[in-house]
Amino acid sequence: MSLSDQPVTRVAMLIYPSFTTLDLIGPHQVLASLPNMQIELVAKTREPVVSDRGVSVNPDRSFEDSDRDYDIILVPGSGKTHVQMEDSDTRSFVSAVGSNANYVTSVCTGSLILAAAGLLVGYRATSHWAYRDSLSAFGAIPEEGRIVVDRNRITGGGVTAGVDFAFRLAAILRGEDIAKVVQLVFEYDPHPPFDAGSPERADPATMALATERLAPSRDAMREAVERLARN
Amino acid sequence: MSLSDQPVTRVAMLIYPSFTTLDLIGPHQVLASLPNMQIELVAKTREPVVSDRGVSVNPDRSFEDSDRDYDIILVPGSGKTHVQMEDSDTRSFVSAVGSNANYVTSVCTGSLILAAAGLLVGYRATSHWAYRDSLSAFGAIPEEGRIVVDRNRITGGGVTAGVDFAFRLAAILRGEDIAKVVQLVFEYDPHPPFDAGSPERADPATMALATERLAPSRDAMREAVERLARN
Repeated sequence: MSLSDQPVTRVAMLIYPSFTTLDLIGPHQVLASLPNMQIELVAKTREPVVSDRGVSVNPDRSFEDSDRDYDIILVPGSGKTHVQMEDSDTRSFVSAVGSNANYVTSVCTGSLILAAAGLLVGYRATSHWAYRDSLSAFGAIPEEGRIVVDRNRITGGGVTAGVDFAFRLAAILRGEDIAKVVQLVFEYDPHPPFDAGSPERADPATMALATERLAPSRDAMREAVERLARN
Repeated sequence: MSLSDQPVTRVAMLIYPSFTTLDLIGPHQVLASLPNMQIELVAKTREPVVSDRGVSVNPDRSFEDSDRDYDIILVPGSGKTHVQMEDSDTRSFVSAVGSNANYVTSVCTGSLILAAAGLLVGYRATSHWAYRDSLSAFGAIPEEGRIVVDRNRITGGGVTAGVDFAFRLAAILRGEDIAKVVQLVFEYDPHPPFDAGSPERADPATMALATERLAPSRDAMREAVERLARN
């Protein structure tokens, strides 16, 4: 079968105020470079959505004008994920799309939105290292890792893990040979100038500062999880 | 000196039709997460700019309403960089900002735009592996590498190299300790699922397919370089 004979794969990527720009764009760049992909950025309304770092992005669809019929849903994370977890319109949309999709996926704290929408009960899943433990409140099984695959649930770790996640998903969708071509085209042979990218590798001072920086968002997440658990 | 006492660093990031989304957003996410940064996305006009993979982004400034006074200019690449290289308004803007900036920077084929604007004469610079050789037509000295620093010119390799480049630049601007905290917050401990991310590491079949895929864009670049050299 030649590539052009493949059916189109429809992907919904959720965007919402303060989404982490790179959580979205890492996987978007990789997946949109595969043959026969149709990716839509879907938001609550058609108004521009401003990311965590101030990038203003125009959605392709609102919840209302989407037919909710996608092969894949991808939910990026944020420092304000808890706001979406407590938003019933967002949970309904994610649940409706995710229940029918072939693959239910996330990057970073996006997995907490999947979890709050009821899509990870009994599934192993990952998230950003600082928020991963909150998954268990929704019946998910938190697992350390940059990519966790459990049946058709594919979750990525924090922010930059979305690129590793995307290459794994690319191989699942279109085969390893095509994924490798995209990897070479995007020169993905990473060489971080420092070795501090995980709690295991960072020195104690770096870990303390990162934990301090994430504390307000982590506290907000825990409070939201408690409120959701009470309802 | 405490962090809040630091002067604000003003950064112009160029966007233009078909820019590679990840070339922009990799560095944007990292640099915008440092203290006291003010980043503006600058385009020819204030109309939305659609990236190579269809992401519609709203610029913060047009060439006209920018004071052209920035500490840093960053130019992302594209499969259609040659269009910007031949656009005199773009060359003028990049030249004006770059001539006064403390750091003149690029990701991927963005270095060819810097070069066409006359900013790399006598400087060592990198670019995407498939386009790097074109730098010499503008008096630059092409160098292999994901990050090449020559005095205040800092250039990154193809697409994903923009993240490595950004952490290096972050350390130059705010120190290695802060860069490491951001690295941990973004969980940048990459583990690509395949090992095909550079011409040296890819197998011959992957290399042949990637080269074939990039051929039209590479040909267009070479033709633009020839035209520019004649003028």
